[in-house]
Amino acid sequence: MSRHKSYKNLSDRQTLNVPVHSDSRGSLFPSNNYQLPFSPKRSFVVYDVPNGETRGHHAHHKTEQILSCLSGKLKIVLKNPEGQTVEFALKKGQAIHQFPYEWAEITFESNGILHAICSTDYDEKDYIRDYTEFLSCRG
Amino acid sequence: MSRHKSYKNLSDRQTLNVPVHSDSRGSLFPSNNYQLPFSPKRSFVVYDVPNGETRGHHAHHKTEQILSCLSGKLKIVLKNPEGQTVEFALKKGQAIHQFPYEWAEITFESNGILHAICSTDYDEKDYIRDYTEFLSCRG
Repeated sequence: MSRHKSYKNLSDRQTLNVPVHSDSRGSLFPSNNYQLPFSPKRSFVVYDVPNGETRGHHAHHKTEQILSCLSGKLKIVLKNPEGQTVEFALKKGQAIHQFPYEWAEITFESNGILHAICSTDYDEKDYIRDYTEFLSCRG
Repeated sequence: MSRHKSYKNLSDRQTLNVPVHSDSRGSLFPSNNYQLPFSPKRSFVVYDVPNGETRGHHAHHKTEQILSCLSGKLKIVLKNPEGQTVEFALKKGQAIHQFPYEWAEITFESNGILHAICSTDYDEKDYIRDYTEFLSCRG
């Protein structure tokens, strides 16, 4: 029996599209709670990241996230403890749903900006920052 | 008697500080629901705005917002129907609380990025886009 209820199949993960409103006056990236697959408790934006820098390198026990590209490009690698790996090349207005027990590595290119919406309040105990520990979460 | 319950005094409005986490790997701007003065229903980010461009030019009947500067500079002018006007020069990590019946004009400088958190779902009927109509909202 799995130690954990489940982790998700990554092979059929689809990118999501956020309708960014862009014109000569700028871009507006909206986030409406009622359109999200969970009730958000917090969000964050990551920006001013040197091109080529990779951030993330952790998974969560409980937190689900919607990871969106506001601007530039983001390469997001997701791995699950079962050994599945998928890579997404997100452009402006594209997003993915990251589930619990999915290790994420996010590489910022072309002045990429990441917007993340989270299903939980911040709790350091929810973070898995050691990759060996992450793999041990296999059922 | 006022037509509307109240509009807020602007003369004592203080800027708020958001603890942006910045280092050589970039900046992380957090938003935690439990720290907000209302339960957020949506948010948006405005960016790629030409320097010197002014956006906004509307007020709300019900919506409260936390308007934050993620990057660059934002000049935010708030006016109430009573004739009070205040101007805020926000830098990275500074924010203001905008109440209902406060007309906002936001000028973007130095590649400014605006983050807005809203107390209501989007509803076009909540918007006051005509300044004469806005002034008529005086009590």
